[in-house]
Amino acid sequence: MKYPIKKVSHEGKQSTVSNRGMDLEEAINLTNQVYIDRDRAYIYKKPIPIQVVSVQYEKRSAARITEAYYKIPSTTDYNGIYRGRYLDFEAKETISKTSFPLKNIHEHQVKHLEHITNHGGIGFILVQFKSIGKVFLLDSRHVSRFYQRYLENSGQRRSISLSEFEEFGYVIKESYALRLDYLSIVDLVYFQAP
Amino acid sequence: MKYPIKKVSHEGKQSTVSNRGMDLEEAINLTNQVYIDRDRAYIYKKPIPIQVVSVQYEKRSAARITEAYYKIPSTTDYNGIYRGRYLDFEAKETISKTSFPLKNIHEHQVKHLEHITNHGGIGFILVQFKSIGKVFLLDSRHVSRFYQRYLENSGQRRSISLSEFEEFGYVIKESYALRLDYLSIVDLVYFQAP
Repeated sequence: MKYPIKKVSHEGKQSTVSNRGMDLEEAINLTNQVYIDRDRAYIYKKPIPIQVVSVQYEKRSAARITEAYYKIPSTTDYNGIYRGRYLDFEAKETISKTSFPLKNIHEHQVKHLEHITNHGGIGFILVQFKSIGKVFLLDSRHVSRFYQRYLENSGQRRSISLSEFEEFGYVIKESYALRLDYLSIVDLVYFQAP
Repeated sequence: MKYPIKKVSHEGKQSTVSNRGMDLEEAINLTNQVYIDRDRAYIYKKPIPIQVVSVQYEKRSAARITEAYYKIPSTTDYNGIYRGRYLDFEAKETISKTSFPLKNIHEHQVKHLEHITNHGGIGFILVQFKSIGKVFLLDSRHVSRFYQRYLENSGQRRSISLSEFEEFGYVIKESYALRLDYLSIVDLVYFQAP
């Protein structure tokens, strides 16, 4: 089965994250590029971890990987530097109308964000509820708390409810120039005195 | 051609980086694990960027990547957080006795380190001269300066000489517990008043 390389084209595109015409990753990547262009932050996407098993070296051409597997990620999707601080987050979408299933996050990723937070960095998740077109930022400490509840009561609460996102998280605003201006929320949550 | 997954075993191993029994990446990974265990820093290796072209989805087994290629890296090997600051570096070995060839570093990586530095982070390269068993830390600003010289005079100076590493860089000390204690040098270079 062939999977052609996804081409990203934005010309004449009117969609926003909330109307579901654009996926979350695309919105974040566009936003990060604007941040870089404006010299506001330097945040980038990490490569996807892949375990390479077989490589063929052919003459006069690039090494071709012929067998490989996706690995369970031990870190998050994005990281970078903002206002001198280390910033790190994982981005997820859900089609659920009521909650975000925690099986979408790996325990290693929760621990990763805890490490970041414990060492003075900024760590969070961005979760898009596609049904209502909202993207929430939820700080790493809340993620850890809900994940702990999930581990301890796996039979009961396997998710973070939308109302918990509304209580403990922050909605990211969208604009045309900045599809998903999450740094404005970061300013509010991590840089303002309480 | 099959490439078995490299197994890392350290039991009873007496080698150090300098006697060339251990490669640089292995030494850095071991050191980073000690830093994590001691809660001194949280620094980790990024995945290698791979462009996936074909994936086979077979029943009851993991997705198998059947065609993929190594991409030119746009970022560095390692990043993380130390003393609240963003830290980022690239690690390279050379067998040359006199200089480090700059073709081993991609322009994107030099720019990446510049971004980090400009936003208040710590960015550098670690270069191991295998012939003399020494590993040097060279700050991003010097890397940029030498890279610029390389771009402008590609016919003449395509490398950073060992004597330039000795003048502008810092030698990393080794010990048994910390194979390559580069954070002691980071303390000296980035956290002490001039």
